[in-house]
Amino acid sequence: MKRDDLLGFSFGGNKCRIGMAFLEDMEKQGGNFMVSYGSSGSNLNRTMAALCKSKNIPCLIMVAEEEGEEACTFNRQIAKSAGAEQVVCKKTNVADAVGQVLEELRGRGYKPYYLYGNEQGRGNEAAAREAYIRAYREIAGWEKDRGVEFTHIFHASGTGMTQGGLVAGKRQAGGREEIIGISVARDAQRGTDAVRRYAGDGPEEIRFEADYRCGGYGLYDSFVEEIIEQMMNSHGIALDPTYTGKAYAGMERWLKRYGTGRERVLFIHTGGMPLYFDYLNRKRAEYAKGKGTQAI
Amino acid sequence: MKRDDLLGFSFGGNKCRIGMAFLEDMEKQGGNFMVSYGSSGSNLNRTMAALCKSKNIPCLIMVAEEEGEEACTFNRQIAKSAGAEQVVCKKTNVADAVGQVLEELRGRGYKPYYLYGNEQGRGNEAAAREAYIRAYREIAGWEKDRGVEFTHIFHASGTGMTQGGLVAGKRQAGGREEIIGISVARDAQRGTDAVRRYAGDGPEEIRFEADYRCGGYGLYDSFVEEIIEQMMNSHGIALDPTYTGKAYAGMERWLKRYGTGRERVLFIHTGGMPLYFDYLNRKRAEYAKGKGTQAI
Repeated sequence: MKRDDLLGFSFGGNKCRIGMAFLEDMEKQGGNFMVSYGSSGSNLNRTMAALCKSKNIPCLIMVAEEEGEEACTFNRQIAKSAGAEQVVCKKTNVADAVGQVLEELRGRGYKPYYLYGNEQGRGNEAAAREAYIRAYREIAGWEKDRGVEFTHIFHASGTGMTQGGLVAGKRQAGGREEIIGISVARDAQRGTDAVRRYAGDGPEEIRFEADYRCGGYGLYDSFVEEIIEQMMNSHGIALDPTYTGKAYAGMERWLKRYGTGRERVLFIHTGGMPLYFDYLNRKRAEYAKGKGTQAI
Repeated sequence: MKRDDLLGFSFGGNKCRIGMAFLEDMEKQGGNFMVSYGSSGSNLNRTMAALCKSKNIPCLIMVAEEEGEEACTFNRQIAKSAGAEQVVCKKTNVADAVGQVLEELRGRGYKPYYLYGNEQGRGNEAAAREAYIRAYREIAGWEKDRGVEFTHIFHASGTGMTQGGLVAGKRQAGGREEIIGISVARDAQRGTDAVRRYAGDGPEEIRFEADYRCGGYGLYDSFVEEIIEQMMNSHGIALDPTYTGKAYAGMERWLKRYGTGRERVLFIHTGGMPLYFDYLNRKRAEYAKGKGTQAI
């Protein structure tokens, strides 16, 4: 496992690397107000709010809320505590909402930088890509130092930023392993398209596996819960049901399905520790309602 | 800052190092059942439960509960999820409670190992000491590599295990910095005695500072809260009000009081990340009661 959860800023994670890349890009483009977007459990929103606060850059996070989704997550609470402005919007109407936010910020005299690019969320792919090209190089360096070659690299795939960077890194380095993103939400077509955009042009096949989504974003089954419990209890590693735990469970299912050996398989822990504690809170609430096992 | 919170097992922390030392010692002594003891927020209890589970060693944690203390902490919940047996006792009656637990476990055919030693909590000081002797060597190695010498090392001091190890390490290495433990609970006499026991015999003065306790274990003031917010917002580092945040605030107060320069001061982050999330839960609950600022 590559422990990007141990990167030392704001609980680490892939968004720690990617957020730094966006901040560099904003500086290049002359922006002075960061605008992020994500679900209520978004690690990206939390990390951008934290990174911006640490550099005294104003930040606004757009929070997509859907009926039935948890609204009060630790990620959102930490972003709030970092002083990020928050705008809640519907997932079905993001472009309009982004447009309004950008217009309003320009009216307040800022040069806002929307980290996905334009209102349709296109244009900043190259900036995001750079983060996991660097991470791929770290992996390749580790392999070279130890004389090991991974056959597969698995990870949670959502926006496509992480997988796109890894694919581009592999292309540049002439790597041979399979990079397999386990979808945490999107269907195969939409997910593959997104990864392709972030990866940039290339001849390679994109391996975006959408068969282990458990019904959609934030949903999970008892096997995901088993995996979370097992990883904590066997290795002291926190996974969460929305991203890393779901992806790890998906990897296990994939390996079993294809009868693939696991000797040289790498899983990238893309962070999101606050979501593990949301999960523990949920277990408490379930217990309080007479469901589940005792919390303490 | 020395980031022991980033040790990769069960949220890291000093108890990750110390717990490993106790497990080694238990093996040497031929024990086969780990018995730990701590408050409801204890990092030691959580870490021992997690370490034991990962090695399939049965574990029982004794939880000292006082009126008014939070009973349902994340540390306790994680220990429960790791399958540790739990016995609740009063702080005023620990020796008897330990005696009963050990007797009962012997009756069940086990050779229990109480990590503090005998029923009075004496006897395993040498095992605990080893953990932070090793950590001291890491610090000394870091200083040597970079041609830097710290003037002071600060950290949260509770049981005395961490400080005792550091003091012993300094003695062995002939170090010159001041090792200053900020008490999280105990008065100067009791705390100093405990550190002395864990440090073993030596000529050195023990620097156990009990002036920054904010009234006792688990209590904190608005400056501690400011420090927690500041460290998260400036450096993305999670501190908690019971141990690390209180100690960091105590360090700031100490440096100000004595007009000491901070150029070569080291703070050891002794972990306890689950307590940061307990703190966030408390902020939510306060808000729900109409106190404090908005949670999200």
